[in-house]
Amino acid sequence: MASVETPASSMAEGRLTEEFAVPSHVEAERARMANFAMRHGSAGRRVVLITSGGTKVPLESRTVRFLDNFSSGRRGASSAEYFLDSGYAVIFLHRHRSLYPYTRLYSGVNLMDALHMEGDGGSDRVVVDQQALPNIASVLKRYRAVKEAGLLLPVEFSTLSEYLHLLKAAAQALSSIGPKAMFYLAAAVSDFYIPASEMPEHKIQSSNGPLQISMNMVPKMLSPLVKDWAPQAFVISFKLETDPSILLERARRALDTYRHQAVVANVLDTRRGYVVVVTRETQAELALTEEDAHAGVEIEERIISNLSAAHSSFITLQG
Amino acid sequence: MASVETPASSMAEGRLTEEFAVPSHVEAERARMANFAMRHGSAGRRVVLITSGGTKVPLESRTVRFLDNFSSGRRGASSAEYFLDSGYAVIFLHRHRSLYPYTRLYSGVNLMDALHMEGDGGSDRVVVDQQALPNIASVLKRYRAVKEAGLLLPVEFSTLSEYLHLLKAAAQALSSIGPKAMFYLAAAVSDFYIPASEMPEHKIQSSNGPLQISMNMVPKMLSPLVKDWAPQAFVISFKLETDPSILLERARRALDTYRHQAVVANVLDTRRGYVVVVTRETQAELALTEEDAHAGVEIEERIISNLSAAHSSFITLQG
Repeated sequence: MASVETPASSMAEGRLTEEFAVPSHVEAERARMANFAMRHGSAGRRVVLITSGGTKVPLESRTVRFLDNFSSGRRGASSAEYFLDSGYAVIFLHRHRSLYPYTRLYSGVNLMDALHMEGDGGSDRVVVDQQALPNIASVLKRYRAVKEAGLLLPVEFSTLSEYLHLLKAAAQALSSIGPKAMFYLAAAVSDFYIPASEMPEHKIQSSNGPLQISMNMVPKMLSPLVKDWAPQAFVISFKLETDPSILLERARRALDTYRHQAVVANVLDTRRGYVVVVTRETQAELALTEEDAHAGVEIEERIISNLSAAHSSFITLQG
Repeated sequence: MASVETPASSMAEGRLTEEFAVPSHVEAERARMANFAMRHGSAGRRVVLITSGGTKVPLESRTVRFLDNFSSGRRGASSAEYFLDSGYAVIFLHRHRSLYPYTRLYSGVNLMDALHMEGDGGSDRVVVDQQALPNIASVLKRYRAVKEAGLLLPVEFSTLSEYLHLLKAAAQALSSIGPKAMFYLAAAVSDFYIPASEMPEHKIQSSNGPLQISMNMVPKMLSPLVKDWAPQAFVISFKLETDPSILLERARRALDTYRHQAVVANVLDTRRGYVVVVTRETQAELALTEEDAHAGVEIEERIISNLSAAHSSFITLQG
C-alpha cells in the first residue's frame, strides 16, 4: 500500500505543526526510537509501540491547572509485559509517573514497609521482605533479563503536546521495519485542548468569578499515522466508553474512518474483565471467568495473545 | 475566642452540605483522626494536620475526564518529616499516589533498578543496592521510629469533594486539643467545580464539537474552619501565584478575610528556594543560599522552624 495523502490526514498533520509547539527533546527521542527499531528489526524481531496513561492539557501557559484523563496506566504497563513474553521489543511511550512494567505489581505498597534492616554491627544491610512484595525474586529476574537484552525502551510524556509530537516521531522511527511494527494505542488522549494563543499566561484568579472554558478539538493523529507516517504498520486503537450501548458502533465507525487494523473496545466499569477486539471482518469477545480472576489471570494476556496472532497473519499477507 | 457565626462561614458550610455529596468513608476517617488527636493531645504533644497534593474535579459523573491542580505533593511530604523531627504528631491528608514522607526521597528511582538478588542455591534473598537508594538505612530507621510511635496518620483523598469533607472532619476531630492543633494547608485545592446536577452522566463525546465548560466557584472552607470548626487552632494557609507582583497583596488580603494566623506565600518558579511567611504583624522572607541548596538543605526545614516557634508563642498567649 503506497502512502496516499488525503485532506483529513494532511489537515491533522498541519494542525499538529501549527498549533502544538515541538518539545525540545523530541529529536533526541526520535533518534533513540529509530536506533531501537533498526536494531530489533534487523534481528528479525517485531517491535510494538505502546502508548499508556493520560495526557495533561494545560489551562494556563505557566501551568497551575490542567485537564486530565482518568488512567493509571495499568493496561499499558501490564500489556508491555505480555508483549515482552511474546517476543516483542517494546517502546513504552507513557505518562510521567504512570504505572510501569513490573514495578506496577508493587505500586500499592509503601517501599518502607517492604524493607528491613539486617545489621551485624558495622555493615547495615537492607533486605526486602518477600511477603510484602510477593514474587519479587521472579519478577526481578524477568525485569533484569528484559533490561539486559535491551528489549524495553521507555519514553515519557506529560502534556498532550509532548504526546502528539512523540507519537509522530515514534511512527516515523518505526516505519523502517514496515509490517513488523505494531502500534498499540492504549493512552487516554484528550479530545480537547486550549490553543496557546488563547491561553492566559498567569494563574486564573478565582476572584474573577465563575470559570468559562472553551476548548478546541484535538486533531485525530490516527489519520496521518495510518496514511502517511507508518502506512505498512499493524495499528490498534482503543475505544473506552461509559455507555455500553454505543460502544461497538463507535468502534466500527473508527475502523471505517481511519482504515486501521483493529479496535479494542471496552467499557469503564468492566474494562479489567471484558473487552471486544473489533476488526473489519471479525469481532472477538475476550472475557475472564471468575476462576481466571481468582487465579490472577489478566485480560491483557488474552488481548496480546489475540493481537499477536493477528499480527502474524498480517505480516504473512504483506510478505 | 468564642465561635461567632458569620454569614460567610455558615454560607460556605451550607454549600458544602448541599452541593458536595459526603463520601462513605468520612465517618470512619473522622473517628480515626479524633482518636489520634486525643491520644497525642493527652500526651502533651502538638498535632499538625498537613494537607498535600492536588484535588481532582470530575467533568462527568462516570468520570473519564477531570480538572486537576499541578502538585506532586513534595512540599507536604517533606514538611511532614520536619514536623515529626520537631516533635509533632502528623495527620497527613494527601492526594492518593502523591508524594509520601520518606518514600518521596526515592520517587524518581525504579524499584527494580535498586534491588539485586543474593542467591546461594535454594534461598534467594533480595537486597537493596544502597547506592541506588542513598541513605536508605538511616531513612528507614527514621520511618520505623515514627511508625512504631504511631506519630503519622495517613488519610487519602482523590476528588475535591472527598478533600472538603475530610478537611471538615479533621478540623472537628482536632478541636478537642484547642491551640495545640496546627493546620498546614499546603494542598492545591481547585477554585472551580461542576455541580453534580449540571454534570453529564456519560463520557462527553468529541463528535459533538468543541467543548464549553462552565464551572462554579468552590466555597472557601477557610472561613468556617477558622470561625466554627476549630476556632482555637493555629491555622496556616498557602498562596501560590505565578505572578510575583500580586503575591504579597493577595496573602495580606487572605489574612484580612479569614483572620487566621499566617500565609506561606510562594511563586511557582522559585517555590523550592524562597517563600515569605506573612502574618498580620510580620513578614519573614525565608530563602536558601546556593550553599544550602548544594548541601541538600530544604526550604521546608526553615518554614517548619519558623512556624513551630510561632505556634509556641501562640499556645503561650492562649494559655
